[in-house]
Amino acid sequence: MGRRALLLLLLLLAFLAPGAAITLRPTLRTLGSLHLPTSSTSRYAVARNYSVHYFQQKIDHFGFTIMKTFKQRYIIADKYWKKDGGSILFYTGNEGDIIWFCNNTGFMWDVAKELKAMLVFAEHRYYGESLPFGHSSYKDSRHLNFLTSEQALADFAELIKHLKRTIPGAENQPVIALGGSYGGMLAAWFRMKYPHIVVGALAASAPILQFDNLIPCGVFMKIVTTDFRKSGPYCSESIRRSWDAINRLSNTGRGLRWLTEALHLCNPLDSQDIQHLKDWIAETWVNLAMVDYPYASNFLQPLPAWPIKVACQYLRNPNVSDSVLLENIFQALNVYYNYSGQAQCLNMSETTTRSLGSQGWSYQACTEMVMPFCTNGIDDMFEPRLWDLKEFSDDCFNHWGVRPRPSWISTLYGGKNISSHTNIVFSNGELDPWSGGGITEDITDTLVAITISEGAHHLDLRASNPLDPSSVLLARTLEVGHMKKWIKDFYGRAGKEELRDF
Amino acid sequence: MGRRALLLLLLLLAFLAPGAAITLRPTLRTLGSLHLPTSSTSRYAVARNYSVHYFQQKIDHFGFTIMKTFKQRYIIADKYWKKDGGSILFYTGNEGDIIWFCNNTGFMWDVAKELKAMLVFAEHRYYGESLPFGHSSYKDSRHLNFLTSEQALADFAELIKHLKRTIPGAENQPVIALGGSYGGMLAAWFRMKYPHIVVGALAASAPILQFDNLIPCGVFMKIVTTDFRKSGPYCSESIRRSWDAINRLSNTGRGLRWLTEALHLCNPLDSQDIQHLKDWIAETWVNLAMVDYPYASNFLQPLPAWPIKVACQYLRNPNVSDSVLLENIFQALNVYYNYSGQAQCLNMSETTTRSLGSQGWSYQACTEMVMPFCTNGIDDMFEPRLWDLKEFSDDCFNHWGVRPRPSWISTLYGGKNISSHTNIVFSNGELDPWSGGGITEDITDTLVAITISEGAHHLDLRASNPLDPSSVLLARTLEVGHMKKWIKDFYGRAGKEELRDF
Repeated sequence: MGRRALLLLLLLLAFLAPGAAITLRPTLRTLGSLHLPTSSTSRYAVARNYSVHYFQQKIDHFGFTIMKTFKQRYIIADKYWKKDGGSILFYTGNEGDIIWFCNNTGFMWDVAKELKAMLVFAEHRYYGESLPFGHSSYKDSRHLNFLTSEQALADFAELIKHLKRTIPGAENQPVIALGGSYGGMLAAWFRMKYPHIVVGALAASAPILQFDNLIPCGVFMKIVTTDFRKSGPYCSESIRRSWDAINRLSNTGRGLRWLTEALHLCNPLDSQDIQHLKDWIAETWVNLAMVDYPYASNFLQPLPAWPIKVACQYLRNPNVSDSVLLENIFQALNVYYNYSGQAQCLNMSETTTRSLGSQGWSYQACTEMVMPFCTNGIDDMFEPRLWDLKEFSDDCFNHWGVRPRPSWISTLYGGKNISSHTNIVFSNGELDPWSGGGITEDITDTLVAITISEGAHHLDLRASNPLDPSSVLLARTLEVGHMKKWIKDFYGRAGKEELRDF
Repeated sequence: MGRRALLLLLLLLAFLAPGAAITLRPTLRTLGSLHLPTSSTSRYAVARNYSVHYFQQKIDHFGFTIMKTFKQRYIIADKYWKKDGGSILFYTGNEGDIIWFCNNTGFMWDVAKELKAMLVFAEHRYYGESLPFGHSSYKDSRHLNFLTSEQALADFAELIKHLKRTIPGAENQPVIALGGSYGGMLAAWFRMKYPHIVVGALAASAPILQFDNLIPCGVFMKIVTTDFRKSGPYCSESIRRSWDAINRLSNTGRGLRWLTEALHLCNPLDSQDIQHLKDWIAETWVNLAMVDYPYASNFLQPLPAWPIKVACQYLRNPNVSDSVLLENIFQALNVYYNYSGQAQCLNMSETTTRSLGSQGWSYQACTEMVMPFCTNGIDDMFEPRLWDLKEFSDDCFNHWGVRPRPSWISTLYGGKNISSHTNIVFSNGELDPWSGGGITEDITDTLVAITISEGAHHLDLRASNPLDPSSVLLARTLEVGHMKKWIKDFYGRAGKEELRDF
């Protein structure tokens, strides 16, 4: 596999990163009120009141030479907060604009009243407006040196201490960490590393085992494949056959011109673009698997309910000529890129355009967040591709000037060996390819796994919807039950401690 | 309080730091075998076999720009280690040469056979031979930037993973962290932050509450005072009166000359040395309190059994003239500085001479390890001195170019709120001034406090001795019991997991 292919793999991985994709869409920057995006069927498309704040954070929590600070952005919504017996739900922001996460985590808004909760959404450093060195933050590896999960967790810890110091009534309240995707990993790790600061964590679709060969590298793409296989007859088989069809068609100039036209590409293909084309198509299938929601949504793109089923309607017959197969592939791609019917052509560079968020995640994937992925074309519907750490590392070095430390995350956070921790709920959707790297079986009474059979990527964190399947309703009920128990235990302990003083 | 006094306070604090004092003595560098130092009464003055090793550690575990490594030194002793059902006792090295700690932690050698244990002693970065930048390690704050407890814990984690990878039979064995003083804090914090790597921790004389006003700043010196008060009639009162006597005598040139002679000082006093003189004397009383062991020892100096009692024999009458009082003070100081009878004169600069160890601790005290100390002359026998963070911070900045973050340690490690952790034994000697900042009451069934009524600074970690009081024998029995339980639980779990695979 050549350098170029690997660079593309790197970009793909960056893109595959949980939630990273969402930063590719422009974010709502309206301050003062938030509107739930899109879902026309939502009962909750009402303005939400919140306020935006900034907190001065140390750029380097783990050293004392750099004394500079930067402004971390965070959001507070306290409409339903009660100083008496209330709680604080703290979203551990991931790799993107915090307004976007705030906007796509309707679950927190939906449960605020029941838990008398203040909602806090904390932006992750190096994303959104929380840039340690302003416009120079991504300048080089020296400036990027403070983009790590450890620094982000320390930001969260300092921010919560600040809130407790400065908001009257907050000091003696339990804080619960919540997050989805990379944010879910952060929520879980936050509880593991700072259990004195958060009483528990809800880690939704958090693939904390997607590191260091803790799971087979092929699991992710296998789940993507299963989603397509189950969503229509011969659907995954059609896709599996499409790669060779593309290879054959791209052997000639005529074939390339035909492909450009058949796929309605904005720019003409040449033979060097073929790997890119296949990566772009593969990314599309991955994205569809992540957002295979039961109702129309606009998470990555405007999409119909169960979008894979819709796409698979065009992929029912693998036993056709290369050209017919590719015309069908186009129809399926079109579900993702042009459901609204507005697109004039499909832009292959779209998913690899580097928004700030994907840039940041690409750096994180090249340092701490080293997630081995591979395909074999047998257990999955993709072209075979090995995981080659050496070349991955070289590409990272060429691109960012840093080399990954693939075992660091499991050394730091424990890998599979996390049974001594408590009060973490790991939720996973069975349709979500990231569930392969998630905790899907109870570890102890207080390290609990919740599986959502009809769920894609952190469906449970999304706002309640009339089309929600019963599995996600049950998951949310269980999640609220755990959170209530943590809150109750906190106040029980606090009560006892107060008594002890007398 | 002037700048100079504060700088002295800073030095004092650095010196007061648990265990720091021990680095002021030359260390045994004999490789290949260790001899228990001094204690002529020890039954264990036999050669111990061990081997010295080095492991390449990242200079910066928390960033990716600096890819350089350094050699961390560690010691292995495996005479009693059993591959079948054995364990690994891991000393989390503190601020000094690891050979010295190895040498002064006879407890680990004494229990090795019973626990079928491999002993590992890991040197703390920036001390002994484990210098990240060689001779330049202390050059400036940039070079010192990686001297933190977090980096040290990460070193320990990486080292244990390395040992498990490379020593056949070690992989599936439980590791227990042990340490005394700052090393005890590291052992406790290691279990808190890396519970997937160590099954439990014995934290001996670990003042994890000596931060951030978690306890009153006067506690430490109050305990020193109690030790003297209980060791002889009017002993603490004599010392309390000595400061004014020094002040009065030092008002005249004649008085200064007299003092120089009466105290057998190597260098003549001038009026600017008086604060230094008093600090030096105060340090001596603090040191005596730390090493008030029940048998002759040579931890800081060659000393008789119960050295405070011996010193207090000279301090029975506070109602004497200033000159008689100071002559008595000299006799008491002489117990500490000249028990062997070899000293020609007393060298005031001795305790403030900066060995590598005390330099390093002074930097750590100016960054993370900010321990507020104060005296009021009423609850303690010292001259009143406030804790002034502002001036402390300014002095740190002038000296090291860094400013302390006094709340960071409790933000990071939890302060008093550590009840969600498990399997830590905190042992404290009631004579030890550091016990005031220790955990001295059980927090849960598995976060246990052991108090040694006749113990000074981590007496329990020292080698067994015929003169050991029953309280330390009981403490060691309890400690071994806890360690055995952790080992048993580990193998119980491992067994179950193996069964689950079948």
